[in-house]
Amino acid sequence: MRLPLRVKVPASSANLGSGFDTVGLALSLYNFFDVLETMPEGEYSIDIIGEGSTELSRDIGNQFIQSYEKACDSWGIAKKGLRVRSSNAVPLARGLGSSSTAIVGGVMIANLFRDVPLSREALLPLMVEAEGHPDNVVPCCLGGMVVSCWDNGELKFVKMPRLPQDIVAVVAVPDFKVSTKDAREALPQNVSMKDAVFNLSRSALLAASWATGKFDNLPWAMGDKLHQPFRSKLFPGGETILREVKEIPECTGVAISGSGPSVIAFSNGSGNPVAKLMCSIFTKYGVRSRFFVLDEDYQGTVIESLPGLRREI
Amino acid sequence: MRLPLRVKVPASSANLGSGFDTVGLALSLYNFFDVLETMPEGEYSIDIIGEGSTELSRDIGNQFIQSYEKACDSWGIAKKGLRVRSSNAVPLARGLGSSSTAIVGGVMIANLFRDVPLSREALLPLMVEAEGHPDNVVPCCLGGMVVSCWDNGELKFVKMPRLPQDIVAVVAVPDFKVSTKDAREALPQNVSMKDAVFNLSRSALLAASWATGKFDNLPWAMGDKLHQPFRSKLFPGGETILREVKEIPECTGVAISGSGPSVIAFSNGSGNPVAKLMCSIFTKYGVRSRFFVLDEDYQGTVIESLPGLRREI
Repeated sequence: MRLPLRVKVPASSANLGSGFDTVGLALSLYNFFDVLETMPEGEYSIDIIGEGSTELSRDIGNQFIQSYEKACDSWGIAKKGLRVRSSNAVPLARGLGSSSTAIVGGVMIANLFRDVPLSREALLPLMVEAEGHPDNVVPCCLGGMVVSCWDNGELKFVKMPRLPQDIVAVVAVPDFKVSTKDAREALPQNVSMKDAVFNLSRSALLAASWATGKFDNLPWAMGDKLHQPFRSKLFPGGETILREVKEIPECTGVAISGSGPSVIAFSNGSGNPVAKLMCSIFTKYGVRSRFFVLDEDYQGTVIESLPGLRREI
Repeated sequence: MRLPLRVKVPASSANLGSGFDTVGLALSLYNFFDVLETMPEGEYSIDIIGEGSTELSRDIGNQFIQSYEKACDSWGIAKKGLRVRSSNAVPLARGLGSSSTAIVGGVMIANLFRDVPLSREALLPLMVEAEGHPDNVVPCCLGGMVVSCWDNGELKFVKMPRLPQDIVAVVAVPDFKVSTKDAREALPQNVSMKDAVFNLSRSALLAASWATGKFDNLPWAMGDKLHQPFRSKLFPGGETILREVKEIPECTGVAISGSGPSVIAFSNGSGNPVAKLMCSIFTKYGVRSRFFVLDEDYQGTVIESLPGLRREI
């Protein structure tokens, strides 16, 4: 392996409404993990710039390093120390899969230290186990919109055809955190059969529509009664955004991104009217926010060389 | 319109496990409604041969006639009387969409009496309303495997790509009836969030796998925790069949057909080992049964002329 190298890992948006814990979409917003050199086992030097630079651990507690070590352990290979520089554009703890970027990045690096590196597909179970659910790590690793199911250590997934280029994903990110624990606890343990059937019919319609290019169905197919009615109450403006944004003519569906508080909407226009409305609703509720107009990332996590800094190991 | 004519309407299997109340597949088993001549308004002559010939109403209570009259009424057109001969191969009240064949057939005939007949797609809402749910009538009308959602009088659906020809559908039909009412009442009103998420993830995987040709996923994707655990108890051998048939190597998924008691399994072999096991389990539980090895019907309901019997109206 030639160092330095760069792991480029996309953000991801899980659920898309109906596809709770199952559907995820990789987005053209990236964290970069630059591995600059190896160090003695157990020694790490971690430089973090961008998102999370004041919050993320710079020692062994760093999630990228934990994921790297866990993968090495699972294969019984030496855990070389690393000097890493992480440049992050994915907002932390906002429902955009930033923790998945660290997990996927760490496993992808560990894989390079194997005598025979595995395919990305073969790495997925390790990644899903580290994250606990497949809906972010699978699209994060493979790119695209992915439907995945995880059961007793076994993974099944389907990577879907590409989102047409005239549809953009608008993501509004409020300056507000919802803990994953609070987001989980907001959900009821039991739901009505009617609501369960509502969601399973929409998630099937979402997959069917995406696969066959019937994107006009998205506003319907993203309908959800299982998690968003509860989670949209956990952050200011949530319920209002879900209700009002879908009324914009160029909006083709809106949902809470992951467990929130970011909100993702699709637009077959410029995306600006959608972004403007989402951010102005956050403002009305007293929360600062920013937005991104993104494309689908269809490539997934890739390893690139860093020209000009080559060094052999 | 030239009489006589024949409406050829396929059987259909709803649910396919995970896709409860949403997914349906048209099958190469047909009811034929031959419309021989018109009669004065309110007069009907109905001849029935084959399935249901001893049970189905031969007067105004016949479901085909009711559906025909309802469609005429909804368009405000005259309800001409009809002389009809119905030749039925779809078993009655066994979960194979026989009532949908009557509903779809009746609306399709009424449509021919309009000045400007509507497209099959435009007739669907009327059919769904008559049946109460979309999962049988939509594939019955359009053919193929269809994902459909019905909400407040609005219908969204996606007709999926064709099932590969090397996969057959094996249907075992026991000599036992389960009323739709009992099948509904066997279901709990509330379910756990975990089971709801299980089904929505499988139904999305089912649609995604079918659309992208990943039929190896079917045994997983047809997994269900919402209805089959309850309904398989309503007929002898149900639980055993669902458990044992999927162990046959050539079986690529098994489910209760509609609300039962027929069982449908996919096979990428001849289908015979699957059929044999299903019927032998029914026998073990003291129930006579028969089986069909069927293809997907991809054409849906069609109107054909009956050569040699032409008469102008």
